Amino acid sequence: MPEPRFADRLAAAIDRSGSPVCVGLDPVLERLPEAVRAEHWEPVRAIEAFSRGVIDAIADHVAVVKPQSACFERYGSAGVRALEHTCEHAKSKGLVVILDAKRGDIGVSAQHYAAAGAHLGADAITVNAYLGPSTVEPYLDAGLGVFVLVRTSNPDSDAVQSVPLAANDATVAGMMADHVRALGASRLGKCGLSDVGAVVGATKASDGQALRARMPDQVFLIPGYGAQGGSADDVRAMLREGTTSAGSSGVVVTASRSVIYPGAGRAGDWQNAVAAAAEAFVADLRGVLGAK
Amino acid sequence: MPEPRFADRLAAAIDRSGSPVCVGLDPVLERLPEAVRAEHWEPVRAIEAFSRGVIDAIADHVAVVKPQSACFERYGSAGVRALEHTCEHAKSKGLVVILDAKRGDIGVSAQHYAAAGAHLGADAITVNAYLGPSTVEPYLDAGLGVFVLVRTSNPDSDAVQSVPLAANDATVAGMMADHVRALGASRLGKCGLSDVGAVVGATKASDGQALRARMPDQVFLIPGYGAQGGSADDVRAMLREGTTSAGSSGVVVTASRSVIYPGAGRAGDWQNAVAAAAEAFVADLRGVLGAK
Repeated sequence: MPEPRFADRLAAAIDRSGSPVCVGLDPVLERLPEAVRAEHWEPVRAIEAFSRGVIDAIADHVAVVKPQSACFERYGSAGVRALEHTCEHAKSKGLVVILDAKRGDIGVSAQHYAAAGAHLGADAITVNAYLGPSTVEPYLDAGLGVFVLVRTSNPDSDAVQSVPLAANDATVAGMMADHVRALGASRLGKCGLSDVGAVVGATKASDGQALRARMPDQVFLIPGYGAQGGSADDVRAMLREGTTSAGSSGVVVTASRSVIYPGAGRAGDWQNAVAAAAEAFVADLRGVLGAK
Repeated sequence: MPEPRFADRLAAAIDRSGSPVCVGLDPVLERLPEAVRAEHWEPVRAIEAFSRGVIDAIADHVAVVKPQSACFERYGSAGVRALEHTCEHAKSKGLVVILDAKRGDIGVSAQHYAAAGAHLGADAITVNAYLGPSTVEPYLDAGLGVFVLVRTSNPDSDAVQSVPLAANDATVAGMMADHVRALGASRLGKCGLSDVGAVVGATKASDGQALRARMPDQVFLIPGYGAQGGSADDVRAMLREGTTSAGSSGVVVTASRSVIYPGAGRAGDWQNAVAAAAEAFVADLRGVLGAK
């Protein structure tokens, strides 16, 4: 039997955990707990130990993690080795791994990036399709799910993504959404969702609703909730029509800093603090779906 | 005395060599010369040995190399180590290194990618600004030159970059060009060119001329010449007004496969074949500038 599609594996994992949340692994040296830094004087070792510790703390609460490739790459090949170990550990805990790498290149280079993602054992990868929709295909061909950058949560993205087009009553983001839908149409899972998802920031809910209309079958990977100002209403506006469970909701809401750096204090039990922050995040989102 | 700006270092290096050409290092296992594969059974070692050999072969003919990060990353951390060695070797030969990584992320993640590029010793990096023009700044702050993806040479890029906007008589690429010019205005070198350049494919010459009008002070990094169909006329259309030397021409024309895989044959002297292909490329471009 062939392995199920990414979309089905994701939906099943979310349904098992009961919540469509994703914890972003953005390890930054200056923010690591004292205990980790005291034990590992070498930055890249501290980053890896912290990532491992976060994974252990959250694995019972969430189904999805999103390692931020940049945080590891800044340490060169040693950092990429730490990323390899981090992805491996996340997989060993049964987590779905979305590699946040925002890659985008043409032809054979895209194939290489896809191979790099597969080499890491990632289930999916974030992709930038400015170079054209077909540049997304190599990742799919390599068996990865993709989340195409459509509407990002940073304020400055407006200067590109909100620019109105001459036709189709659309913005640049709307045009990208139409490409995403078209790419994803032939890659639907049994759950009705596509292996081709979209990154849509929670801070752009007015856009979120319009983008959901353009992309009915896409999973929205949603950064910007909480710390960046996105609210429960913002997420609710992006839920898929006919949501019957967390896995079918078509949203994966990410939190990074608010969970992995839950605030100072409680020396020695930073992992408990991370676990508690993950639980709080899950509880917070419960209201959004009205589930469980 | 502070180190000169990237734009000035690039112009000086091109003037020293007499030609605005750049060799793309896109090492792909299946295409490596027999001699290299025979000596190195481990793929990543073969890739590294080949890259080193290409650099040695071309260093007397060209001023600029552009390693394709994807080709190395596909081998994970071991591949990134090979990329580190490759960049180091290119720098030791006095070459300007443009890392073709097409990175693009927000805030602190962009800073991490910039740090990763600086860690490699790159002089400049290719950047995707779909997430907004300000996401380019961290690379500049880290001392790197940037080439922002504006109009790429692959056919499918039309589906995004050629889409007409509602205003400014522009396409998406034109809007990106306006951002590039604005970002680059405060970062002009003594040579009159900016540290903020643009990637503009040679296969889009009709666009090239219009984009030159929108970006008078940008260095255009031009892929697609030769093999992909771009001609001397295409490049000529993109030359900067008032070009007096190769370094002031505002173009860097890249060739990858046609130089590094110059064709079968001549066992044992693959490096001579690469050197000859680099020389031929330089000679070919000489007519374009009418210089030397």
